[in-house]
Amino acid sequence: MSKNYAVIMAGGRGERFWPQSRQARPKHLLPIVGEQTMIAQTVARLTGLVPPEQIFILTNAEHVAAIQAVCPEIPTDQIVGEPMGRDTAAASALGALLVRRRDPEGVLAVLAADAAIHDSAGFQKSLRAAYATAAQNDFIVTIGVKPAYPATGYGYLRRGEKLGEGEGRPWYRVVKFVEKPDLATAERYLAEGDYLWNVGMFIVRAANFETAFRLHAPAIAAGMQDLDQRLNAGDTLPDALAAVYPTLVKISVDYAVMEKAANVAVFEAAFDWDDVGEWPAIVRHAVADAAGNVTRGDVALYDARGNVAVTGEGHLIALLGVEDLVVVHTPDATLVCPKSRAQELKKLLQVVAAKPGSARWL
Amino acid sequence: MSKNYAVIMAGGRGERFWPQSRQARPKHLLPIVGEQTMIAQTVARLTGLVPPEQIFILTNAEHVAAIQAVCPEIPTDQIVGEPMGRDTAAASALGALLVRRRDPEGVLAVLAADAAIHDSAGFQKSLRAAYATAAQNDFIVTIGVKPAYPATGYGYLRRGEKLGEGEGRPWYRVVKFVEKPDLATAERYLAEGDYLWNVGMFIVRAANFETAFRLHAPAIAAGMQDLDQRLNAGDTLPDALAAVYPTLVKISVDYAVMEKAANVAVFEAAFDWDDVGEWPAIVRHAVADAAGNVTRGDVALYDARGNVAVTGEGHLIALLGVEDLVVVHTPDATLVCPKSRAQELKKLLQVVAAKPGSARWL
Repeated sequence: MSKNYAVIMAGGRGERFWPQSRQARPKHLLPIVGEQTMIAQTVARLTGLVPPEQIFILTNAEHVAAIQAVCPEIPTDQIVGEPMGRDTAAASALGALLVRRRDPEGVLAVLAADAAIHDSAGFQKSLRAAYATAAQNDFIVTIGVKPAYPATGYGYLRRGEKLGEGEGRPWYRVVKFVEKPDLATAERYLAEGDYLWNVGMFIVRAANFETAFRLHAPAIAAGMQDLDQRLNAGDTLPDALAAVYPTLVKISVDYAVMEKAANVAVFEAAFDWDDVGEWPAIVRHAVADAAGNVTRGDVALYDARGNVAVTGEGHLIALLGVEDLVVVHTPDATLVCPKSRAQELKKLLQVVAAKPGSARWL
Repeated sequence: MSKNYAVIMAGGRGERFWPQSRQARPKHLLPIVGEQTMIAQTVARLTGLVPPEQIFILTNAEHVAAIQAVCPEIPTDQIVGEPMGRDTAAASALGALLVRRRDPEGVLAVLAADAAIHDSAGFQKSLRAAYATAAQNDFIVTIGVKPAYPATGYGYLRRGEKLGEGEGRPWYRVVKFVEKPDLATAERYLAEGDYLWNVGMFIVRAANFETAFRLHAPAIAAGMQDLDQRLNAGDTLPDALAAVYPTLVKISVDYAVMEKAANVAVFEAAFDWDDVGEWPAIVRHAVADAAGNVTRGDVALYDARGNVAVTGEGHLIALLGVEDLVVVHTPDATLVCPKSRAQELKKLLQVVAAKPGSARWL
């Protein structure tokens, strides 16, 4: 029986949860939801299904040490630093290469490092079915999430006919990938019922994934072949990556492969999922007070409603008469913005970046 | 010619400018407006008119050391710690006693420690006229400020007939003291033109002030007589204050003496004056950006309008899409409130006080 591998994609620029997240400490290195860092939770969620020796983490070279510190069970040579960000196509292809070089029969699951999933049992049930299905079929198997609301911030996939069952769960052909829709379209997707959120979870035999790249993204496949040869010739992985990565095109795996491939299948997730994309999203994972405030740390409130207030050890946030704000304190920077505008944080960070000596805040 | 003394009232509980102000560091110990602490500015404003040896500062016992540190030119035994707050009547009477014991002919000016006055020359001109007038007349001479707007947060006094001139400036009888008016009344006062803000600035011969207390506030006068005798008997001032202060009634000098005395006169201030009573008031003493934001320290703004943001060394406040907020950062506490509700800060501080371990924040 083939072995299960996981390739955890730990990219991220540390912008969406600023000021807690920084370039040196992106979201997956923070306990945005829960007590552990998001990446440690992602690793822990695989316990019993994928042993640490079969988990790879792909990240920015500058984050390797921090990830080693919070994921000590992962062999250090499996925490791989990309010399530069080349989006998810390159990273997925690299994951497939690393797994196939280790184990030509290996099945890998590509997983995000920073999603919030509370139902670990449901997650393992879904993933186990996907591994089994991908092992036995020439499909790229995704796990799609039934929309909880008409989200405009996610891509969707449309499922077609049922192709079979894996571990007692049905799987379907994917007939279409669609990009982030407008609200009316998202509402229609929700009503029609056969659209699922594309949450970037792919399970596929490594060799099969390499074939898909050769078919649909030949330039990236060629880069991976170059990398493979350099490793065969005795180059270290960092040296080989430094030589090859700059030549790779920067493109998402959805664009490069998934939207083109005919052999994509989907299981509907048997678990909750949230990418927790911005500060106001933590409200979905917390208990609010009677006035709708969600707080972490020492927060004093007088006639304050619907706020998200996050502070650290010993520092008090005191809110008087304010509504629906995000207030986040860290020792060297404090953010204040309406919840409704948290998605504009990048614009604020451009202002920060223009300030003298701004590096310490980014 | 009689000598000029100043008695600076440095009370205050450190609430209105929280979190910068604390019980241990009230407003007059902060540079709320300008570069120096408010009390150091108050002392500096007297340079050339009242020598340091003739300045007394009355404060809470716990603040004596901090005031000594920022006002090193004042003889340390003239920075007097009250064992407890007993409002302005007791403090004024104590000031009169201390000056009269030093100099039976002395004229004292009672001044607040924390007002913002930018025109020091105009201030000295007004105060010089008041000293001269108080020295030569049996009047309690006040300096009233021409209302700049229909303020509802100040008491007013109404001037009557002109009584004379001092240093070329006219002075008038005060015919009425009035408490904080409602807006309609304040607007009428502004229109009528003979109402001035009562800013608690009194200039009077010490012996004359003592007479006024004996007439209108005999219980406080009796307490001062007790104090006088204890000092004559060789008690230290702290010991004498510890014995007498608890027996004194807590009442303002306006209620206890001014409203009752027939011999109150007023000069109109020849200078700007602002008590800077809450955070939004600093806007009147600062240059705003094009969007009306007033900032101190490192502040990054994106689409933010009309805010007051104050931070300290190295800590960034970043505001995105917010309007008319007060945001003040200190190393251990951050305040966020609408400018329009800054006057409710005391209610918020009651919430803070109820938190475990709150002493560090108060």
